[in-house]
Amino acid sequence: MISVRGITLGADRFVTMAGPCSVETEAQVMATAHHVRRCGARILRGGAFKPRSSPHSFQGLGLAGLRLLAAARRETGLAIVTEVMSELDVPLVAEYADILQVGSRNMENYSLLEAVARSGRPVLLKRGLVATFADFLQSAQIILANGNPHVILCERGIRTFETALRNTFDAAGIVLLKRVSHLPVIADPSHAAGHREIVPALARIAVAAGADGILVEVHPNPDKAWSDGEQSLDFPAFEAMMASLDPYLALRPFADQKSPHAQWSEVAG
Amino acid sequence: MISVRGITLGADRFVTMAGPCSVETEAQVMATAHHVRRCGARILRGGAFKPRSSPHSFQGLGLAGLRLLAAARRETGLAIVTEVMSELDVPLVAEYADILQVGSRNMENYSLLEAVARSGRPVLLKRGLVATFADFLQSAQIILANGNPHVILCERGIRTFETALRNTFDAAGIVLLKRVSHLPVIADPSHAAGHREIVPALARIAVAAGADGILVEVHPNPDKAWSDGEQSLDFPAFEAMMASLDPYLALRPFADQKSPHAQWSEVAG
Amino acid sequence: MISVRGITLGADRFVTMAGPCSVETEAQVMATAHHVRRCGARILRGGAFKPRSSPHSFQGLGLAGLRLLAAARRETGLAIVTEVMSELDVPLVAEYADILQVGSRNMENYSLLEAVARSGRPVLLKRGLVATFADFLQSAQIILANGNPHVILCERGIRTFETALRNTFDAAGIVLLKRVSHLPVIADPSHAAGHREIVPALARIAVAAGADGILVEVHPNPDKAWSDGEQSLDFPAFEAMMASLDPYLALRPFADQKSPHAQWSEVAG
Amino acid sequence: MISVRGITLGADRFVTMAGPCSVETEAQVMATAHHVRRCGARILRGGAFKPRSSPHSFQGLGLAGLRLLAAARRETGLAIVTEVMSELDVPLVAEYADILQVGSRNMENYSLLEAVARSGRPVLLKRGLVATFADFLQSAQIILANGNPHVILCERGIRTFETALRNTFDAAGIVLLKRVSHLPVIADPSHAAGHREIVPALARIAVAAGADGILVEVHPNPDKAWSDGEQSLDFPAFEAMMASLDPYLALRPFADQKSPHAQWSEVAG
Repeated sequence: MISVRGITLGADRFVTMAGPCSVETEAQVMATAHHVRRCGARILRGGAFKPRSSPHSFQGLGLAGLRLLAAARRETGLAIVTEVMSELDVPLVAEYADILQVGSRNMENYSLLEAVARSGRPVLLKRGLVATFADFLQSAQIILANGNPHVILCERGIRTFETALRNTFDAAGIVLLKRVSHLPVIADPSHAAGHREIVPALARIAVAAGADGILVEVHPNPDKAWSDGEQSLDFPAFEAMMASLDPYLALRPFADQKSPHAQWSEVAG
Repeated sequence: MISVRGITLGADRFVTMAGPCSVETEAQVMATAHHVRRCGARILRGGAFKPRSSPHSFQGLGLAGLRLLAAARRETGLAIVTEVMSELDVPLVAEYADILQVGSRNMENYSLLEAVARSGRPVLLKRGLVATFADFLQSAQIILANGNPHVILCERGIRTFETALRNTFDAAGIVLLKRVSHLPVIADPSHAAGHREIVPALARIAVAAGADGILVEVHPNPDKAWSDGEQSLDFPAFEAMMASLDPYLALRPFADQKSPHAQWSEVAG
Repeated sequence: MISVRGITLGADRFVTMAGPCSVETEAQVMATAHHVRRCGARILRGGAFKPRSSPHSFQGLGLAGLRLLAAARRETGLAIVTEVMSELDVPLVAEYADILQVGSRNMENYSLLEAVARSGRPVLLKRGLVATFADFLQSAQIILANGNPHVILCERGIRTFETALRNTFDAAGIVLLKRVSHLPVIADPSHAAGHREIVPALARIAVAAGADGILVEVHPNPDKAWSDGEQSLDFPAFEAMMASLDPYLALRPFADQKSPHAQWSEVAG
Repeated sequence: MISVRGITLGADRFVTMAGPCSVETEAQVMATAHHVRRCGARILRGGAFKPRSSPHSFQGLGLAGLRLLAAARRETGLAIVTEVMSELDVPLVAEYADILQVGSRNMENYSLLEAVARSGRPVLLKRGLVATFADFLQSAQIILANGNPHVILCERGIRTFETALRNTFDAAGIVLLKRVSHLPVIADPSHAAGHREIVPALARIAVAAGADGILVEVHPNPDKAWSDGEQSLDFPAFEAMMASLDPYLALRPFADQKSPHAQWSEVAG
C-alpha cells in the first residue's frame, strides 16, 4: 500500500487518476481538475514534460506546466502525478509532483529509475511496450533496491501484431501482477485503446481484472487537444464512464485474488 | 443471434459452455455434464477428435466420444459443441453435435471452413494465434458466404512475446468484435490462461468486456485429465466461478455497447 | 537429402524453385517455365488450388491448372511443386505434382499433414506465421511419423509488430533449422518480402544463411498477375537475381555448418 | 558517410567493431584489442557503463574502464565505441570515446538522444527491441535535428514470439534501412543470436544484407566473462569468422542497393 496526500493505493478503495495528456493552459487544467474531482477522481494527471519524439512536436510547458498543476492541487485538493523524462529534471519535478511517472519508453532507463528512486516520491512505473512481466518487475526492483518502496505498476498495453487498436491491453497481466507482487497495479485504458470510445470498456475490464486504479486522459475539448486527443474523453464521457464503473467497484475485492502466490515465483524472476 | 436447442447466443442471456478438454470415459462425461448443468451451463463441450500434434499424443475417442456426448445430451438436455479437425469428419460430427467447433490451428483452413459451412450447423470459430481481427472476420465471412449465417466468434488468446501465461488474452478484442460485427462473441478463458487459477478472473474479464458467453474446461479430476489438465477447473472451482460471475452478469448489457459501428469499418475489411 | 526427378535437395547443389503464384494460362505457364529453366531453376512452382480467403478472390484453375503444370514439365523437364489445400484433393494433386506444398495457413492442419504423408510424395512444408521452431519441427514430425521421410522445410517470414515488409524474414531460423534437423531447408523470399525489389536481397541472405534452395514467384507481367503480383519478379529481374546469386553459391558450403547439433536438442522438442 | 579517426562508415569498406561486452581488466582489454586488430577490426568496443538491470549485477568499471579503452587505443590505433547510459555521463564518455553508443533500452530516451547529439560525437544507435523502422528512424532524426549528422544505425534483433534464439535478427530490416536512409547501417550478430556458435552465420548474413559493418563481442575466455559470455567469441573463433567473411566482402557492393528510394518514403515517416 502506498499513501499520498491521504489517498491509499493498493488498498480496498479504487483510485482514479485523470486529466489531460498535456498541460496546455490554466483554463484547461483548472476546468479539468474540477470536473474529474467532481466525478470521483482523487489524483490529477497532466504532462508538463512530453516525449520529444520529434523536434516539431509539442514538448510540454515544463516548469510553467508544473506550476499550473500545483495551482490545480491547491484549488481542488487533488494529488498530482506527472511524467519525468530526464534524470536532470527529477529534482524539479519532485518539488511539484506527488507521484513521478516513468513512461513506457523509459521503463529500462536505469539512470532515470535510480534518480526517481532517490527522490523519495512514489513512482508510477509504466510497463514497456514489449516488457515481459519479469522485465517489468525487474525495473520495479531497481527502484526498490535504491531505497524507494513506493512503486505503482501500470499496465498500458503491449505491442503485438494487431494494430486495429493502439496496443493490446493485457488484462490478464493485471491479474498476474496482483498475484506475484505486493505492489499496487493500475491500468491506463487510454493508451491501450488509442480510441476514446473503447476507453470505458477497458476501464471496466481493468476493474474486473482487479486493478487498484486507473489512469485516464480527459480533456475539455479532445478534438482540440495538443496531444493524444483521439484517446481523450470529454467531460460528459468521463462522467458517464465513472458512473458506469460504480456497480463494478461495489463488487470488489474478488475471492480469487486471495490465493497464495508461491507458484508464480518464476515470473517474479 | 443464433439459436440452438432453445438456447440463444448473442442475445441478452450469457451462455456458458463447459466440459472436459477430451471425452475420456462415460463416467467422466456424465459426471461433468450433470455438474456443469447444475451450475448453470447450457452447452457441454468435449473433444472427440483431438489435434494430433504428435503421433504419441491422445487423438480422441472419435465416434465413441461423439456417442458419449450424445448420451450426455439425452440425460441432461445440454446442447453439444465439439471440434472437427478434418473436412472428411464433418458429416459424422454434424450428425452428433449441435455446434461444430473449428480450432485456432484451422482458422485459415478454408477447405474445412467451407465444409462446416455446408453442414448447416452453427459453427464456433476460434481465433487463430496470430490472426488479426480482419483475418478472423474474413474466416467468418467464408462460412457466411457459403450459406451458413450461424457463426460464433471465440477469442482464446493470441501469441505474443509474453510466455508467463499460455497466451495473451485479448479482452479489448472482444470489445472491438462486438462493435464491428453482428455475430455472437464468446471467450475461452481456459486456453488463454493455461493455468486454472487464472481462469475465473479471465471469465470475469470476459463478462466485463461484453462477451456473449464463455467456453470453459472442467474435469472431475484435472490432475488426471488426459489433456489440458493444468488449465481445467475441478467441480468446486467451476461452481465457485459460476457463482462469482452472477453479480457481474446482473450488470449486463452495457450502455457503451450501443454505439454506432460505422467508424470501425476498416477493421472488418 | 531428398531426390525428385534427379534433383537432390539438401545436398551440395542449391535448388531454385520458381514460377507464378497462380497458374493462369497456358501461355503464361509455358513462357515462365522456359524462362526460369533457362536461368537455372530446376523446379517449377505454380498454384492450381489457391487459398480461398474470400469468396470473390481467384480460387485457382484446379485440375486444369495441374494439367498445365504437367504440360510444362513435359516441355521443359522441370519438376513440379504445387500447393494442396484440402485433404480431399491430395490424391489428385499427387497424381500431377512431384512435390506437394502445404501452406503456412495449414501448417497445423494435422488431417492434411497425414494425408500428404500417405501420398508418399515429397512435401514442402511452409512455416506458419507464428510457428516456433519447435512447432514447425513437430508438424514435420507428423509427416515423418506417418511414413513419409521426404519433408522440405520452408522459412517464409513470420508475423511480428513490424508491417513495413509483408513479414519478418527469419534468416537466423534457417541457420538454426539446419543445425537441429537433417531435413532440407529452403526459403521463400517472395512471401517474406512482399515487395519485389526486396526479393533479390532476401534470396542472397538465404544463400548466406545456408539454405538449400529458394522458392520464388516469377511472372511474365507481374502488374497483371491474378495474385501476388507486387511480390513477383518479371523475367529480367529473375534473370538478374539468378546471376547475382552465382558468386555466393560458389562459396557454399560453410565451415560453421558442420558443428555438432547436440546442444540445440531442446529446440527440436 | 561518417568518418572517425580515418575510418569511414557507410562507404565501400566494411567496418568491424569488436571487443568484450564489459571492460574487465587491463590484460583483458589489451589482449582483445591486439587480437581483433590483427584480425582486421578497426574499432574496439567495450562497456564501461553497463545496464544496471539488477542492483547485484556488474555495473561496469566506469571511468577506470574508459581509461583502459583509451590506453588500448593508444597502443593499437583502434577507435573506441562505448555505451553511455545516462545523460549525466555524456560529457565524460565523449571525452574518451570516438563513438557513443545508445543501447536498445534507451532508443526512445529522448533526453539521452539530445545529450549525445549535443556532444558532437558520432552516435551508434541501436534499434529498440520492438521498434518499427519508423520508430528507429524517428530516434535517429532526433539526433540529426539536434545538430549531429553522424548517426550509425544498428540492427540487433527484435523481440518476437520465438525464444530459441535471444532475438529475431531482422536481416531484411538492414536491406530496408539502406534503401530508406542515407545513414550507415551495421549489425550486431552477438545480441541477435545470444549463442556464440550462431554469430558467424549472422555476420555473414549481415554482409549479404548489405550492412556497412558489424559489432561483435569477443573475449579471451568467454566462459569466464563478467557479462554476455555465452554470446562472445573466443580469439580463434573470431579469427575464423573474419576469415570466413572475406570472400563475401569481396562481392560488395550489390547492384540492387542502387535502386531509387522514393517508393519507401512511407517507412521513413
